[in-house]
Amino acid sequence: MTPRDPATEAWPATIVLDGVRQELPDPVVVEEPLEIRVGGAPLVVTLRTPGHDRELAAGFLYAEGIVHQRSDLVELRGADETAPGGASDGANRVEVRLRAGLGPDPTRAARSFLATAACGVCGKTAIDQVFARGLPAIAPERPRIAPGWLEALPGHMRAAQRVFARTGGLHAAALFDGARAAQPGARPALQVLREDVGRHNAVDKVVGERLLAGELPLHDAVLVLSGRAGFEIVQKAARAGIPVVAAVGAPSSLALRVAERSGMTLIGFLRPGRFNLYTGSGRLV
Amino acid sequence: MTPRDPATEAWPATIVLDGVRQELPDPVVVEEPLEIRVGGAPLVVTLRTPGHDRELAAGFLYAEGIVHQRSDLVELRGADETAPGGASDGANRVEVRLRAGLGPDPTRAARSFLATAACGVCGKTAIDQVFARGLPAIAPERPRIAPGWLEALPGHMRAAQRVFARTGGLHAAALFDGARAAQPGARPALQVLREDVGRHNAVDKVVGERLLAGELPLHDAVLVLSGRAGFEIVQKAARAGIPVVAAVGAPSSLALRVAERSGMTLIGFLRPGRFNLYTGSGRLV
Repeated sequence: MTPRDPATEAWPATIVLDGVRQELPDPVVVEEPLEIRVGGAPLVVTLRTPGHDRELAAGFLYAEGIVHQRSDLVELRGADETAPGGASDGANRVEVRLRAGLGPDPTRAARSFLATAACGVCGKTAIDQVFARGLPAIAPERPRIAPGWLEALPGHMRAAQRVFARTGGLHAAALFDGARAAQPGARPALQVLREDVGRHNAVDKVVGERLLAGELPLHDAVLVLSGRAGFEIVQKAARAGIPVVAAVGAPSSLALRVAERSGMTLIGFLRPGRFNLYTGSGRLV
Repeated sequence: MTPRDPATEAWPATIVLDGVRQELPDPVVVEEPLEIRVGGAPLVVTLRTPGHDRELAAGFLYAEGIVHQRSDLVELRGADETAPGGASDGANRVEVRLRAGLGPDPTRAARSFLATAACGVCGKTAIDQVFARGLPAIAPERPRIAPGWLEALPGHMRAAQRVFARTGGLHAAALFDGARAAQPGARPALQVLREDVGRHNAVDKVVGERLLAGELPLHDAVLVLSGRAGFEIVQKAARAGIPVVAAVGAPSSLALRVAERSGMTLIGFLRPGRFNLYTGSGRLV
């Protein structure tokens, strides 16, 4: 609500409660386009909540297989008012300079799927494309996780969701360190949490933060999602080497197939006292 | 769960309830890519829940401003097992033949935004692009809506959500006829409801159904959304001439600006006994 928070905005609303109307400025989540440019050329425009824009650009480029490590990113410049020392020029644009020799594959547009004679455009094609780019190996037995530790995660995430508390309008993605997740009484340690109107953006920001910190691929990490776990989200997590993804909402069939093939533990409908375990059950103690 | 339902699939899951594990086949929502081809060339691949695929293709082409009326679509063929008389070839592909002279604008990719010198890539640019394509006029005083009628809509929608009830994994979009929405005791009449893993797909299917029925642009229609109202959703509704959009979740700032400029009534956080009215308050009695 203050001018310094680029993620929310006050809108003059009428609240109707049991038929009684009240005029009130209602805080709504900000949605604005962001253009990601690479080497001076436009790559993609995504609708996102302003803030952590360079992380978003870095995470997007990583998910698309265009960059692989911190040193591939020579320079990130532009639209990010919340990064340390960052100042936006108001242009909603991040300019990326890559290490020489790197760049988007001009023959493959983002999110396209190749068709094969066998199945046309199908889930198998989509999954094969994910794995064709190469994924970091995930250790099958790490981390070890106790159900009680897992069930506490949504509460810890919600407590840290600054913007959601005021607008109810964002998706959140949070990384927790799972290294001690099997120890009785261990308190979950939040590593990074990001919120966005787009759930894929929230995950790109989380992964981008870790990439810029030189921490990819991840080990022992548990990614918690405030919503559902679809194909694109699980694909991004697999790229980052995340061994456990736990969603408050439902998974999709294609997300489950990616999780299974990458050796990931995928959990859905996570809440105190219950969850569904779909793949990678060996990590649960 | 039956082989004849392409929208759900049984996955061998472990349900953990108060620490007790039970192995159960859990119905999950199916997510598969669909390729939309126009005149023999690929236009877009979208991840969607199978079913009503030709409606999805028709609604997408309408939202993108590529077709404007039923007669612009000469032929729709392919991946739709649920349409009357439809038979899928399993290829997840819809082939569209357009009236001569129509086709995608090769100079403008879907969902791209032009940059202007004034604001770079910003919300204003995005909104100007929506209106530059031309939108049907919305009558400012129709339909007239009573709060009690409105508050009953999510319950009516939920009762008709066949797949959500089993998987918890879909977004829904539903059109209700608002012509009698101000009459005391009038029961909401559901016109069409569609469910999908992607909220934008659910709206494209609803609008596509109306387009194929020759019913666009819509008048007196109320679109109910199971989730949030973002820019892309409200843009699609404005294109179809829908005067009232009511979301169970939160709106975004950019969605509110599109709603305001198009003369739409936008409601958020809709539930029995309360809702927030953000734009177009003149339709509420």
